[in-house]
Amino acid sequence: MNHDYCVKDIALNAQGQQKIDWAAKWMKVLNRLAERYEKDGSFKGKRVTLCIHLEAKTAYLASVIKRLGAEVWITSSNSMSTKDDVCAALAAQGIHVHAIHGANRKTFNEFLVSVVACKPHVVVDDGGDICELLHQNPGYAENLMGICEETTTGVQRLKEKVKKGILKYPAFAINDAQSKYLYDNRYGTGQSTWTAITHLTNMTIAGRVVVIVGYGWVGRGVAVRAAGLGAEVIITEINPWKAMEARMDGFQVMPIEDAAPRGDFFVTATGEDDVIRLEHVENMKDGAFLSNAGHFGYEIAVPDLYSKAISVNTVRENIEEIIFANGKKVYLLSKGDIINIAGGLGHPVEILDISFSLQLASIHHVLNSRYTEGKLYNVPAEIDEMVIREKMLVENIRIDEDRKGVLKR
Amino acid sequence: MNHDYCVKDIALNAQGQQKIDWAAKWMKVLNRLAERYEKDGSFKGKRVTLCIHLEAKTAYLASVIKRLGAEVWITSSNSMSTKDDVCAALAAQGIHVHAIHGANRKTFNEFLVSVVACKPHVVVDDGGDICELLHQNPGYAENLMGICEETTTGVQRLKEKVKKGILKYPAFAINDAQSKYLYDNRYGTGQSTWTAITHLTNMTIAGRVVVIVGYGWVGRGVAVRAAGLGAEVIITEINPWKAMEARMDGFQVMPIEDAAPRGDFFVTATGEDDVIRLEHVENMKDGAFLSNAGHFGYEIAVPDLYSKAISVNTVRENIEEIIFANGKKVYLLSKGDIINIAGGLGHPVEILDISFSLQLASIHHVLNSRYTEGKLYNVPAEIDEMVIREKMLVENIRIDEDRKGVLKR
Amino acid sequence: MNHDYCVKDIALNAQGQQKIDWAAKWMKVLNRLAERYEKDGSFKGKRVTLCIHLEAKTAYLASVIKRLGAEVWITSSNSMSTKDDVCAALAAQGIHVHAIHGANRKTFNEFLVSVVACKPHVVVDDGGDICELLHQNPGYAENLMGICEETTTGVQRLKEKVKKGILKYPAFAINDAQSKYLYDNRYGTGQSTWTAITHLTNMTIAGRVVVIVGYGWVGRGVAVRAAGLGAEVIITEINPWKAMEARMDGFQVMPIEDAAPRGDFFVTATGEDDVIRLEHVENMKDGAFLSNAGHFGYEIAVPDLYSKAISVNTVRENIEEIIFANGKKVYLLSKGDIINIAGGLGHPVEILDISFSLQLASIHHVLNSRYTEGKLYNVPAEIDEMVIREKMLVENIRIDEDRKGVLKR
Amino acid sequence: MNHDYCVKDIALNAQGQQKIDWAAKWMKVLNRLAERYEKDGSFKGKRVTLCIHLEAKTAYLASVIKRLGAEVWITSSNSMSTKDDVCAALAAQGIHVHAIHGANRKTFNEFLVSVVACKPHVVVDDGGDICELLHQNPGYAENLMGICEETTTGVQRLKEKVKKGILKYPAFAINDAQSKYLYDNRYGTGQSTWTAITHLTNMTIAGRVVVIVGYGWVGRGVAVRAAGLGAEVIITEINPWKAMEARMDGFQVMPIEDAAPRGDFFVTATGEDDVIRLEHVENMKDGAFLSNAGHFGYEIAVPDLYSKAISVNTVRENIEEIIFANGKKVYLLSKGDIINIAGGLGHPVEILDISFSLQLASIHHVLNSRYTEGKLYNVPAEIDEMVIREKMLVENIRIDEDRKGVLKR
Repeated sequence: MNHDYCVKDIALNAQGQQKIDWAAKWMKVLNRLAERYEKDGSFKGKRVTLCIHLEAKTAYLASVIKRLGAEVWITSSNSMSTKDDVCAALAAQGIHVHAIHGANRKTFNEFLVSVVACKPHVVVDDGGDICELLHQNPGYAENLMGICEETTTGVQRLKEKVKKGILKYPAFAINDAQSKYLYDNRYGTGQSTWTAITHLTNMTIAGRVVVIVGYGWVGRGVAVRAAGLGAEVIITEINPWKAMEARMDGFQVMPIEDAAPRGDFFVTATGEDDVIRLEHVENMKDGAFLSNAGHFGYEIAVPDLYSKAISVNTVRENIEEIIFANGKKVYLLSKGDIINIAGGLGHPVEILDISFSLQLASIHHVLNSRYTEGKLYNVPAEIDEMVIREKMLVENIRIDEDRKGVLKR
Repeated sequence: MNHDYCVKDIALNAQGQQKIDWAAKWMKVLNRLAERYEKDGSFKGKRVTLCIHLEAKTAYLASVIKRLGAEVWITSSNSMSTKDDVCAALAAQGIHVHAIHGANRKTFNEFLVSVVACKPHVVVDDGGDICELLHQNPGYAENLMGICEETTTGVQRLKEKVKKGILKYPAFAINDAQSKYLYDNRYGTGQSTWTAITHLTNMTIAGRVVVIVGYGWVGRGVAVRAAGLGAEVIITEINPWKAMEARMDGFQVMPIEDAAPRGDFFVTATGEDDVIRLEHVENMKDGAFLSNAGHFGYEIAVPDLYSKAISVNTVRENIEEIIFANGKKVYLLSKGDIINIAGGLGHPVEILDISFSLQLASIHHVLNSRYTEGKLYNVPAEIDEMVIREKMLVENIRIDEDRKGVLKR
Repeated sequence: MNHDYCVKDIALNAQGQQKIDWAAKWMKVLNRLAERYEKDGSFKGKRVTLCIHLEAKTAYLASVIKRLGAEVWITSSNSMSTKDDVCAALAAQGIHVHAIHGANRKTFNEFLVSVVACKPHVVVDDGGDICELLHQNPGYAENLMGICEETTTGVQRLKEKVKKGILKYPAFAINDAQSKYLYDNRYGTGQSTWTAITHLTNMTIAGRVVVIVGYGWVGRGVAVRAAGLGAEVIITEINPWKAMEARMDGFQVMPIEDAAPRGDFFVTATGEDDVIRLEHVENMKDGAFLSNAGHFGYEIAVPDLYSKAISVNTVRENIEEIIFANGKKVYLLSKGDIINIAGGLGHPVEILDISFSLQLASIHHVLNSRYTEGKLYNVPAEIDEMVIREKMLVENIRIDEDRKGVLKR
Repeated sequence: MNHDYCVKDIALNAQGQQKIDWAAKWMKVLNRLAERYEKDGSFKGKRVTLCIHLEAKTAYLASVIKRLGAEVWITSSNSMSTKDDVCAALAAQGIHVHAIHGANRKTFNEFLVSVVACKPHVVVDDGGDICELLHQNPGYAENLMGICEETTTGVQRLKEKVKKGILKYPAFAINDAQSKYLYDNRYGTGQSTWTAITHLTNMTIAGRVVVIVGYGWVGRGVAVRAAGLGAEVIITEINPWKAMEARMDGFQVMPIEDAAPRGDFFVTATGEDDVIRLEHVENMKDGAFLSNAGHFGYEIAVPDLYSKAISVNTVRENIEEIIFANGKKVYLLSKGDIINIAGGLGHPVEILDISFSLQLASIHHVLNSRYTEGKLYNVPAEIDEMVIREKMLVENIRIDEDRKGVLKR
């Protein structure tokens, strides 16, 4: 097959490659696995399709898969997060990349088709769009050995298919591996959310009131870092056990109605829609900052805010000033999209090293197995453990031996 | 039936009652439930047997059950934790208490029989000794409607009975309720371990190296409070995910061999035996402190230490100085028994308010149900939630309503 | 001179000696200095008088001075903090101790005279009472080479004498040494205040509101440990810079009027009188805890509370329940006296090791100098530095060399 | 006088103005003072010269001074920190700005002359360059009423002039005001250093070893935020008291020689030169990150590193990879210049609001006084207090009244 690609500007490739090279230096577990898999030739002659946020770290995963001998097709799971320079670099490497920042829905869909037309052996999916497409056009799935799904949402969609009895292909819930959900959400999102907010706003967090909506893994990560920056932290929850846990962790807990007039910074982390609504915003302090750390951009009722505002102006990159009829204003960061990606650099490199090592090891596993049933599988426990132990190795962390078989009980 | 009891000295009752009265003031959820159950008369004429650590807070649970109209028999699940003044106070209240501090094994066993001879309707067990006895002497179980088990260990023993198919009576895993395990272990043990250690030793924790063996719920609680006191904290683990989590939480992680020569204070929290052994102790700093926060007193290999020592002296209440042939010495707190109970006041009052409210509500549930099968049941979800919501009520903590049924999904 | 002493019960000496022996093990800097001074004989034949809180650690300082060859007279600076068993042990060692727990004002004053009648060469004073007596009866000061004052208050009184031009003797502000005020107040009081409160009350601190009145060194120490225990912390201040600092450290800041109805635990740390008054207490939550971490017992307006109360009952050791006409109650710890000493074990051992090493080195300095003027001196910088460097040595802490003389600039 | 200016590209003014407008929104104290001073006309017809880092926040100070009626001349105190778009905006406002990013030394010096040729009434200096120039060319100082110096360094240079008896003009040590040094260094640098490092590198801080060289105000601020991000923190010091304080705050303390092989991230904060030297770097982990948070760019011995390296490559914006003959590499951020400014956005807006309010109030004070002597003055206490109280006002923080005059004692 020819090397086809569709990117904004191939000339951006040097700039993009520099970013990928940076990631390459720090994805040490991935590099170790690649070295190992290079020897066994499992990837040789296979076709792998990825649909994922297209930035430097994901690009490096694609590079590695190609280096191992596979042909690689890749598109973006979100047009807004696509980096054109990184896409150019992938194209220059000979990867079939079809992605352009800000592409509209129609083009986005065409790109999806472009990357599955090769009838891939393995698919890495992020949100479930490719999976959906393969169910609609089973012809593309002729060679399919398995789908590796990265996200909570994608896994949720797979479970619904399982429940309805319509899942046709073997699928793997990468997201549910212990090595994944313990790191990304708390440590990755926790840190990168605050780097994004402080870099976008140039504001002080110490001595300010931060309201975090939701005390799940993401909320906890964002809360502990907010406290680490010297903020007074308020948590809102609907789950009484999580609420009490937040309280015992030293945070204030109250309903969003009560928190609204107290916060200087609001961060949503619930996975639910419309958790900050117009009725709350109207009661906020003049000049409050609204942002979202959850996967989807619908946790803040942004359309409502826009429609009631008398003015919406971009006053700084990624900051919109929304003014209401009563003269009050709030600042919306990155339009309510996931702040650490839309307004920053995404997860830190070493955090994604673990996630993508799980991906690579899972692809390798699929290529060496003979899954055929339309079932949802967990990442095998030995792969999960191998990855975390490799991570400890590159970090030079040693622990005690399990001499009594406690872990197996 | 006559009021029989066996306590050390009934004259201690005023002193014991003062302690119970203090607990009574702060067990607000328990008091609210008691008020509610008083009206429905469920406890009237029933016989309830408890086998539990016998101190002020547990005594208050017994008092409440009696106040609700039941006849109450109680003994201690651990002779060393028995408080004679508290027993005297219970006896003076008309409760059938059979317990003496430091009673030997034979007497301990006689006490067990004394409290089941009444053929109770409900049993509150802590570790499973009563349950065992009822299986050996089914006659005592003639009226038995259910066993409520408080601890991890007791639940473990019940599960073994289930596996072997020999569990004869309905049993309830109080320990596994969300309202229980989230609080006791982290917040209760975390705080009370350090109060005990600092009160027993009068030592500074700030600027010292604290080694915590195990990063489960107890270990986390002990670690976060150690950091809060200004310590440098080292975690040892056998589980790689927990180890990496400890590392990402900012703690150092290393094998116990490496940690041994660095620690000033050692706290075990694994639930396993012999996790600190002679080989480690021999490499410790002169003057290191050894203590255990786990349920059982066997995490430190104390018998080995004693047998190799050239001298063992009590140099302060609950502190033994153990000197080895090479002149090195370590300080063992409370002989390696669970430090917060054996060397302190046990869990804080309000923490046990939640646990015992779960107990009372579960007894109430058993009395109003018709369980007969030999199965292990969870505390019904609605009881678990009722207790945590009552706790929020007495703490005046309000949260958002679950308008979309998210908790039920 | 005969060995005269006046203690409660000399038979308590073994128990007291055990406590002193414990302190002796951990006051490692003091032991090193003692070893050094033993060789030069400076203390031989000298008379040293101490007036200080009389508990195990201070007792050990007295023991050391005697071991160095001086005759030692000692009384307590506060009858309520006097430990009779420790006094007995000192008496049994041949030290002239005149102190009884709870002695009334008249006896207290007679004790003061008893310990200066020997016409001491050096005086260690704690609060300035001996200094005052020597100014009234200069005959006792015939041989006086210097007064070493331990506390802020005593230093304050000395400064007033200097201002009025009436200071007759050389005096040394031990309290103002860098090695002293940086440790005692923040790290010593910070930790021991919370050990005392949690041990006295058996209450949970996590998830409770702690109000700290004053953000000086003591207040900071108490605040950071409260946060470390999982509390929500509120600071009240009169100084705007300290208030803003507290805010930037992540604490809430508000006037005491606003804080009163929110707090579960109140801790005063201002050095000023009546900072918590009846008007505040009347607005507190039912069941709030009042305590004081400042040197003097007058920060809470206790007499006012007593006089307005309809009942005051000791409901637990060191806890008084004060009920007001409207039915509301608060719990007063240790009658508002300094909580870590009156309700606990005082400063941790190693903290006092630094303070008392400064004392010993200062006495040694006075004995080897010829101060005669009635002036207030600082501890010489080289003594201050010697002590902190010895402390680093026993803690095995090494630092960089000051190769460019930066410290001298 | 005509409106003369010298900027890179006047067309950048809209972009620069947007940044200034953002600062204007959040410099609330400055705005309040401006409103007040507008009424009294003190600035009307006066000439004010500023030499300061030229970015959005400083630009806003200049704008305000102009709005108050003064003519304003401004240049940059550091060519590397100059933002050309902000300069353009100032020029467009009619301010006499002479500054270009990256200007060489000669041009830099010409700019200095350009801004004093107007013979200003007041000078705002940052580092002391203008002050020096005025001493060399007293003709420019004909109308001079006072110099307001912003930095530690500038104040240090003024003190040297005082010591030598050669200070000719009244000067004000803005830096030494309580409202200034307590905020900038700890809270401003603390936060912005980590935003810069995480934004430049995309690395995780949790679970990494951060070595901070120096535990002064800046070092503390950087350390507490590193801990808040989940790092293991090591402090190096030459001052024994600061070292022990760091230890008691829970950090590890060791010489730089020992810390070198352990650190993942190094941050210098000493104000001294060459505190990280080649001998340390050679012992570092492969891939360690070097950065400086101190005012000057000489804390890391960068020229030595460059001269011994076999290769120095920019691998990412503001990141140089330095490779040594043994194959080891380190990453140098922003060439060792002050990381939060050279590699980030500088202090957060609200932090500088306090500093620049002190500046404005001091200028106002100078304009309304008749200082003539060549002395170094402190900011009057009432101005210092006014600013901090205004800050509390805009933050809506209320505190207790000082009813007993404690603050005046």
